[in-house]
Amino acid sequence: MACDLCKLLAAPGAALVWADHQLSVVAVDETEYPGFTRVVWNAHVKEMTDLAPLERTRVMDVVWAVEAAQRAIMGPEKINLASFGNMTPHVHWHVIPRYRDDAHFPNPTWAPAARASTPEVLAARRALLPALHAAIIENLKASS
Amino acid sequence: MACDLCKLLAAPGAALVWADHQLSVVAVDETEYPGFTRVVWNAHVKEMTDLAPLERTRVMDVVWAVEAAQRAIMGPEKINLASFGNMTPHVHWHVIPRYRDDAHFPNPTWAPAARASTPEVLAARRALLPALHAAIIENLKASS
Repeated sequence: MACDLCKLLAAPGAALVWADHQLSVVAVDETEYPGFTRVVWNAHVKEMTDLAPLERTRVMDVVWAVEAAQRAIMGPEKINLASFGNMTPHVHWHVIPRYRDDAHFPNPTWAPAARASTPEVLAARRALLPALHAAIIENLKASS
Repeated sequence: MACDLCKLLAAPGAALVWADHQLSVVAVDETEYPGFTRVVWNAHVKEMTDLAPLERTRVMDVVWAVEAAQRAIMGPEKINLASFGNMTPHVHWHVIPRYRDDAHFPNPTWAPAARASTPEVLAARRALLPALHAAIIENLKASS
């Protein structure tokens, strides 16, 4: 089990927000980005087009459920969605709430940082995480 | 019409690979990334969850058609998918074929460059573009 995501799903701990037989929703512990969430296909599959069409739709329905919860609870300026997998070729999506005052705005979070975030702003966003996770679970209950 | 993507769709020129009443597929002119393609929702809509569920599925079906064509024709190491829109809040997807020897691998293309690409390698990939665009059109004919 050399894949980091396979290892994480085998022992997800506190990071796991929700899971079913196909997919897991994981809270990402990244200081600058409270609310950053990953949607992970449980099986070790490399590309979205390696999945059957209905499986792809299911992955994206979970991504939309996370996006909707982030918008409702965190009120970000924009949602960023990305699936790279160059280092970890196991289907997973990054869902990131972005704000005008965050460390990289308006660039992607993988670009060099543009500024430092204020601890107070980050603390206020972190305080929303229990409500965010409850909203994600609620949206997924409604969609399944 | 202040939005760059609205302007592009009004006068797409040679960049337009395919379009219907909902979506446009645009070839991105980025020297380091032959094959880089954008899928753009024609109307000025900000987030994926501003679209109706069936519209979202249609967007992603076009993304999968582009991904499948890139894999079949260009044989990349990995496909990268991203939708940010921080600067241009008009739904669009980046679909990027990635290679171990490309300028940023294994990082996202928005990270600082790791190396320079060889002109011969880039020329060989550029030579595949007519076949790539034909395959995208073929996949979209089959899916619609």
